[in-house]
Amino acid sequence: MRTGSPLPEPRNVTRTVEVMDAIRQRMADGRLSPGDRLPSIRRFATAMGVSPSTVVESYDRLAAEGVIRSRPGSGFYVSGSLPPLALAEAEPRRDRAIDPFWVSRQSLDADAEMLKPGCGWLPADWMPNAALRRAIRRLAHADDAVLADYGSTHGSLALRRLLARQFAEEGIAAGADQILLTGSGTQAIDLICRFLLRPGDAVLIDDPCYFNFQALLRAHQVRIVGVPYTRDGPDTALFAEALAEHRPRLYITNAALHNPTGATMSPQTAHRLLKAAAAHNVTIVEDDIFAGFEPDPSPRLAALDGLSQVIRIGSFSKTLSASVRCGYLAARPDWVEALVDLQVATNFGGPSPVSAELVLATLGDAGYRKHLEGLRRRLARARRETADRLAALGLHPWLMPRGGFYLWCSLPDGRDAANVARTALDERVILAPGNVFSVSQSAAGYLRFNVAQMSDPRVFEVLKRAIAAAEG
Amino acid sequence: MRTGSPLPEPRNVTRTVEVMDAIRQRMADGRLSPGDRLPSIRRFATAMGVSPSTVVESYDRLAAEGVIRSRPGSGFYVSGSLPPLALAEAEPRRDRAIDPFWVSRQSLDADAEMLKPGCGWLPADWMPNAALRRAIRRLAHADDAVLADYGSTHGSLALRRLLARQFAEEGIAAGADQILLTGSGTQAIDLICRFLLRPGDAVLIDDPCYFNFQALLRAHQVRIVGVPYTRDGPDTALFAEALAEHRPRLYITNAALHNPTGATMSPQTAHRLLKAAAAHNVTIVEDDIFAGFEPDPSPRLAALDGLSQVIRIGSFSKTLSASVRCGYLAARPDWVEALVDLQVATNFGGPSPVSAELVLATLGDAGYRKHLEGLRRRLARARRETADRLAALGLHPWLMPRGGFYLWCSLPDGRDAANVARTALDERVILAPGNVFSVSQSAAGYLRFNVAQMSDPRVFEVLKRAIAAAEG
Repeated sequence: MRTGSPLPEPRNVTRTVEVMDAIRQRMADGRLSPGDRLPSIRRFATAMGVSPSTVVESYDRLAAEGVIRSRPGSGFYVSGSLPPLALAEAEPRRDRAIDPFWVSRQSLDADAEMLKPGCGWLPADWMPNAALRRAIRRLAHADDAVLADYGSTHGSLALRRLLARQFAEEGIAAGADQILLTGSGTQAIDLICRFLLRPGDAVLIDDPCYFNFQALLRAHQVRIVGVPYTRDGPDTALFAEALAEHRPRLYITNAALHNPTGATMSPQTAHRLLKAAAAHNVTIVEDDIFAGFEPDPSPRLAALDGLSQVIRIGSFSKTLSASVRCGYLAARPDWVEALVDLQVATNFGGPSPVSAELVLATLGDAGYRKHLEGLRRRLARARRETADRLAALGLHPWLMPRGGFYLWCSLPDGRDAANVARTALDERVILAPGNVFSVSQSAAGYLRFNVAQMSDPRVFEVLKRAIAAAEG
Repeated sequence: MRTGSPLPEPRNVTRTVEVMDAIRQRMADGRLSPGDRLPSIRRFATAMGVSPSTVVESYDRLAAEGVIRSRPGSGFYVSGSLPPLALAEAEPRRDRAIDPFWVSRQSLDADAEMLKPGCGWLPADWMPNAALRRAIRRLAHADDAVLADYGSTHGSLALRRLLARQFAEEGIAAGADQILLTGSGTQAIDLICRFLLRPGDAVLIDDPCYFNFQALLRAHQVRIVGVPYTRDGPDTALFAEALAEHRPRLYITNAALHNPTGATMSPQTAHRLLKAAAAHNVTIVEDDIFAGFEPDPSPRLAALDGLSQVIRIGSFSKTLSASVRCGYLAARPDWVEALVDLQVATNFGGPSPVSAELVLATLGDAGYRKHLEGLRRRLARARRETADRLAALGLHPWLMPRGGFYLWCSLPDGRDAANVARTALDERVILAPGNVFSVSQSAAGYLRFNVAQMSDPRVFEVLKRAIAAAEG
């Protein structure tokens, strides 16, 4: 951003939006119907306490949207007809089965009043929005090509170079040409699945693991095989057994901080996994999405293996922004080329150049790094405090994670997490019951909590009632 | 493309694919396992009711894919394990085959000095960047939630409402809950394919058609059946024949301005298509991506049908920005819910809320409308001027489109467009040879030009030399 460039006046923008909203409100509550003439500019300016030019701007923009129409010499009129709006758009269906989509749908479509201790992201005001806003202001001055064009098939070279430097620090030698930007971390895994899997193939995942791995693999119609997860990572003996029995093509796991448990893989486990996987020609997808929350680096399969049989994927959704969608993968060069074709075929090109530019600028913002440090401290405090408050309700974490925002807690006295979650949802609190994470359905006695989403005391009140109501 | 150009026989291509699919099916259901010998050519030809040469061709192609192996003197055997899905040769280099990825890869990864008369988008400085920059400045003042959160599963409600109003003006009554925002128009079609198609299903496309439809369908491993395109839309008699013969699940086509020909579907064609499709229970995907370039509205299948068997898809990449990635689909409500789950599973949620906000604000900018009007005039002028300059080189448009930026031109004297394109690429000019658009490979004598990318006189100099160098 050039210093001294005139920034837009936010107040006028706000006033224009207020006038537009006032008109929309009149249409919504029936005071203005299709065909009705809008108030005159002068009269409405007086009524709203704004300048006539603000009303003109508002009417022009509503006309550009098609909400109202101008009839020359006669004023503005409400347009023909509004389409029907179904109730379903505001309300996710509460009665749907508690399956791997349950938490996603409830959390993503929750309205602002709902509390979401079961969701998988930070509250909006815990995110580095100041740094992102600076990046957005810079973006307004970017070249036409950044704003208008599809961008290259691999995605922003500058961002790929930055990632390559970060990988080098971890000991992973990957050129920028081995990195492919994607629309999201999930989309990166999806591309890999499309590339490597055929219906009926076996795929190993951790049990428990991130519920969307299961949802994604269902879309690929593969056989999902769970490997029990220990406090040191997947159980290596059972992992080896599963390899021999199911001959899987792929194993998908989290690096750094495991979702939902918050556990960290030990170096011995990492080494044994790689050795067993190599013997059976299994490709490993290592999802590094929680890396930014680690207090210090932990073993990485990709670093031990050097991107031979491991594919690293990640995104910026947890620490930077989930709204600016951008993920990545790093893999063998020949695989990257095939994945590029797949991404062109299925999404015409890579992620938005505008998104990549915003990510790059935010990562390079000094305020972002300070934010991350502060965030780690804030989360450490929230983890301790939340664990104490949950303990008072008889909920105990399976382990105390080194970082991140998850606590994987056992319920007291054999109570069923799905029942607790259903009761809580009636009180507008979204929980994450254990079995949505478990392919073997063996986690009925667990809930995953997000310590950053639990500052409202109502969470604990509802939780207490819901636990009491659930059968023991 | 009935008139003039002799049609190739698409049946042989189809039969080869059918034989390949039959083998794949036997491998999928276990009748053929790794190491097994394939049926002899003569026996399988009899069983499938095809000629031995078709089986030879099928086995050769499966062997080229690595699915099976030939042992000289002994026959064909199933390979050890299925290889990864390869959509095209892995090289992005200039020597790669001229296949449906050729134009995408060359155009997307072209450096700034290359000229791109073969590419499918406007130059960056023809785009509404001033309006987009205003939208970006407004975005810097958006709520934290817009900047930080994943957003709702269906995508921005405000943008969906705006689309619903636009649909209402076309006579399509679709509530905002029937609209799903996606990462791109292509991604919308990809979701629909994942939802409706299974490997081996038949899908109809226009011949010629947008090359990426072929690339996308290859990723879904379906049988692609081309329907010759006339100046009034697809040939309705051959469309009906293809329905009866191949029992396709889906037909994918462009509304408004057909890619690559620029033709417009006539009302009679639209009506006949819908009637035939309804009789065979075929879903139609209508891609409306060029709607913004129309001088006046043309028939829409979705408007005639009312989103019963038609799914409308579109994006903002051609007229607003290809960098701010956002597409949409409008479909039956129950299908939208299923597509939401698929999008969550494969991309965790919908398009970037930041992108939707930028699209919404730009669409609402009064300057955007003015830009579009000016753009249509500018393109009309460029079409006429480019047609004149191409005529001087012996290149003649198949028809003069009502709008948009494409001219589908025949080469003089039977010259081969692929040879012309290869020569031009050596001189750093990217052309779009006809056969990348043609599933039957019957468009070797055509090139698709983008009149907005031809202001540099070097395009015509290189073209002249390349045509002269190509054999007549």
